[in-house]
Amino acid sequence: MLRKITVAAAQVGAIDLGADKKDTVERLIKLLREAAEKKVQLVVYPEATLTTFFPRHFIESQEELDKYFEHGEDITQSPDVKPLFDEAKSCGIDIVIGYAERTPDGTGYNTSVYFSAAAGKVISKYRKVHLPGRVEPFEDPNATNQLEKRYFKPGDLGFEAFRAPGLVNDAVKKADIKEGESTDGKGDPIMGMLICNDRRWPEAWRVYTLQGAELLMVGYNTGGYMSHLWGGKSIPPEQAEKEALFHSRLVQQANSYMNACFSISSARCGMDDGKYHLIAGSSIVDPEGHVVAESKTSGDELVVAEVNLALCRQGKERTFDYGRHRRIETYSLITQQTGLVEPELL
Amino acid sequence: MLRKITVAAAQVGAIDLGADKKDTVERLIKLLREAAEKKVQLVVYPEATLTTFFPRHFIESQEELDKYFEHGEDITQSPDVKPLFDEAKSCGIDIVIGYAERTPDGTGYNTSVYFSAAAGKVISKYRKVHLPGRVEPFEDPNATNQLEKRYFKPGDLGFEAFRAPGLVNDAVKKADIKEGESTDGKGDPIMGMLICNDRRWPEAWRVYTLQGAELLMVGYNTGGYMSHLWGGKSIPPEQAEKEALFHSRLVQQANSYMNACFSISSARCGMDDGKYHLIAGSSIVDPEGHVVAESKTSGDELVVAEVNLALCRQGKERTFDYGRHRRIETYSLITQQTGLVEPELL
Repeated sequence: MLRKITVAAAQVGAIDLGADKKDTVERLIKLLREAAEKKVQLVVYPEATLTTFFPRHFIESQEELDKYFEHGEDITQSPDVKPLFDEAKSCGIDIVIGYAERTPDGTGYNTSVYFSAAAGKVISKYRKVHLPGRVEPFEDPNATNQLEKRYFKPGDLGFEAFRAPGLVNDAVKKADIKEGESTDGKGDPIMGMLICNDRRWPEAWRVYTLQGAELLMVGYNTGGYMSHLWGGKSIPPEQAEKEALFHSRLVQQANSYMNACFSISSARCGMDDGKYHLIAGSSIVDPEGHVVAESKTSGDELVVAEVNLALCRQGKERTFDYGRHRRIETYSLITQQTGLVEPELL
Repeated sequence: MLRKITVAAAQVGAIDLGADKKDTVERLIKLLREAAEKKVQLVVYPEATLTTFFPRHFIESQEELDKYFEHGEDITQSPDVKPLFDEAKSCGIDIVIGYAERTPDGTGYNTSVYFSAAAGKVISKYRKVHLPGRVEPFEDPNATNQLEKRYFKPGDLGFEAFRAPGLVNDAVKKADIKEGESTDGKGDPIMGMLICNDRRWPEAWRVYTLQGAELLMVGYNTGGYMSHLWGGKSIPPEQAEKEALFHSRLVQQANSYMNACFSISSARCGMDDGKYHLIAGSSIVDPEGHVVAESKTSGDELVVAEVNLALCRQGKERTFDYGRHRRIETYSLITQQTGLVEPELL
């Protein structure tokens, strides 16, 4: 039983506030060409890949803010970004890429899309549900902000799993079909996208894997050194980075295991503008929670692994066979209430 | 802000099928006395502490099976077990202990209770919700069974958080109260119990922490060497043990972090009847997901740590501030469906 595909996290290093988007896209294309040489079929870029992580800045001018967003319905037609999708199609590689989306009605979302080379278009869009940070900037003008709640609305598309066509070839598909089963639609991987903070919320993973997801794709921008400036907590930079990497890896491994799925997580990392540090740690994790590939640098880097989606079955059919083991009658608080039953009690 | 309590996992080593329950309780009391010497306030014993892990055996005789259960409404009055609760009361130590419960109507549950020394009685009971294993034994008479689904019904008490009185003293309580807040009920730890396989299900942790839980207490019996006999998977014994320990630790750390709570997990471990191996790895984990204390042996052992419940606030008020960040409108599948939307698609 083999359903192997070759995948990659395309980690992207520092991007300064004033970077030219064309230059950034050129870097992404370079990673894509490396992927093509390595016979990679799917490349996952980070969250908000096209610019610096601008929610760390309090930007009052709408005109300036809009520079960091992609406008319009179809990102594959954004002039600066179109060359990336054209290259993906010509290489026959699927890509996931995160960007700041401005809809025609002016709403901002922290978005990612799945571009299928076989379909020649975007076949799924996800908008980040769990926005961290605040609406108002810190009073201290030297503090590093996190203003996602100001610039974006929570995603309105839910967690919709989808199948990507063409990644698993017909011969492999047939080998995977049990006797007597229909072959309609079988074999194509069931996937879902998450963005950054979403990966810390087990609800997000579960909603995808209740739809059968076998592979989750996560892009992130996660503060390392600078995190000691958030909320007034002061710890040494090295310790802050180590702790941020630990948490990022921990949730990736545990949620992959508890949901019996592969995950690919891709970091925007390095030191933006010489002073804003983001952790690296891009990785590919298997359904047993083991890291099968990880980044070695804090810059542009392709992290490649061949994954066999059939390995999800061990978990999905035994320990995490939802149909036999989940007890939904005991979970009602999860959807009944957002926060604590009696928050004043804490 | 200090809300410190000293807690312990009381790990319990091998218990053979024919062990005398009085001898076992004597071992538990010995651990309790060691806890008293170390000024421990709360001791957590494992799942089904009083006997060998009998669900590994296919027991056809109801009379024989009933020997492994405690009968009646109040475990503190079970003749063989009463000395343990008497000792706990006399030492002023709260205990959590797991056992197989047979209710007056004949139903079996995999149960644990919280005995409060201050209250002098059981103040909370939990019945395991996520029962692993099967109803029917394996055909191979040499296979190690896992018949929890045969011997127990899924817990009918849900995940009910509770406060344990008397663990945090009045002076500490007052130091923890913010100006202008009511002091009614403040300071007593908010707790919950889980049993074994429950710890792998993030839903269970979430329902407790939506009620403000700061400390979850988990007892387990988890197969190590013998796991290669379950489901026909054959891997070397050392690797099976390593993998089982890895998963146990991973979910304990990640769920503690993602729920901003402490957890104490206590193993029934060692080699029962000279051939059935259970992993050790008892541990105490903090709300950032770090192991603060862990067992060094595979036998009876007290694992002690002082924990400051105030450390939960960092997570509960920032990254995991449910009220600000959870988006319940996207979680509905979690409570709407037990298994996959379209299981035939996998």
